[in-house]
Amino acid sequence: MLRLKLPTDPRWANVAEKNLEEILTDHAFCEQKAASTAISLIVTYPEYSDLVTEMSALAREEMSHFEMVHKHILKRGFVIGRDRKDEYVARVTKFFAQTGDRKLRLVHRLLIAALIEARSCERFKVLSENIEDQELASFYAKLMVSEANHYTLFLKFARQYGKREDVDKMWDNLLTFEAEVMKDFGNKELIHG
Amino acid sequence: MLRLKLPTDPRWANVAEKNLEEILTDHAFCEQKAASTAISLIVTYPEYSDLVTEMSALAREEMSHFEMVHKHILKRGFVIGRDRKDEYVARVTKFFAQTGDRKLRLVHRLLIAALIEARSCERFKVLSENIEDQELASFYAKLMVSEANHYTLFLKFARQYGKREDVDKMWDNLLTFEAEVMKDFGNKELIHG
Repeated sequence: MLRLKLPTDPRWANVAEKNLEEILTDHAFCEQKAASTAISLIVTYPEYSDLVTEMSALAREEMSHFEMVHKHILKRGFVIGRDRKDEYVARVTKFFAQTGDRKLRLVHRLLIAALIEARSCERFKVLSENIEDQELASFYAKLMVSEANHYTLFLKFARQYGKREDVDKMWDNLLTFEAEVMKDFGNKELIHG
Repeated sequence: MLRLKLPTDPRWANVAEKNLEEILTDHAFCEQKAASTAISLIVTYPEYSDLVTEMSALAREEMSHFEMVHKHILKRGFVIGRDRKDEYVARVTKFFAQTGDRKLRLVHRLLIAALIEARSCERFKVLSENIEDQELASFYAKLMVSEANHYTLFLKFARQYGKREDVDKMWDNLLTFEAEVMKDFGNKELIHG
């Protein structure tokens, strides 16, 4: 799915479902961090007007997803827990070498964001197809579509601000790297765990 | 208005209108910072479910205001500039002494947020009544209402998480302090300038 090079083992969904409070808390904060990333891109690159326009709409959408997840948490009698570091995000973020080239840094950030959305989308699909809680299964089926749109949005901007050919090569290399990283994951009740 | 102890001299609106690109950029980032503050409260105090619910809705609303301001910027042929430090916010934030009491820190943050919303509301009123650009005047008249609602929302939460009597005293002291601070402002093309 979405050109990711290592699919998630569906058994991960069963690990996740065993601790709904944990996976929902982690998911809520994924949405919050996605909103914060969109805001950070606005603050760092305000001169790219079309990026700013799309990122402000995206930040709103991510916060509305946060609200939906929070409602699912409360409805089940849980309380959202504390946010924790996302090890997967920490690992994939290190792929691109630091650079003094401001525009290249933007392309790197857009590709990393595209990747995280793509993997989240895949994880939501696995959840939607494998968990027993039917209400949550249909919730994840819907969210999956949004994440796929976000993934293409970030990739579109990366190709717009970088050289198409270079960006496609970076993206392919990033996907290869991510597939390696993912071998260490798939066993925890976290969206990227 | 709103119990603020030093009203803004309406001549500030004329200073502001002379540099619309500047005031609109500053305003856009005020909305972004308000969204980021709401998100930060969620991340820091996730266990207060009703706060989390309201703050996620608020973050969305502030980002939708950001989008509106951004549209006004683009429509006038401007490009949003870089964000800069808000001296007023830096000054008023220093009012409360640091404390190890987690819940009291929350009350302090809520009161500071209420104050900033109250002053923003007052500034929007001054703009709406004094600028010549009729489209912006009516935009500010509408936003004024939202900011007044946010101010009461933050104050409500402060009274909920603190002792009502103590909170009212802190609020009154904060307003007195802010009136002193404001004597140094009112002459720049910034929302809190």
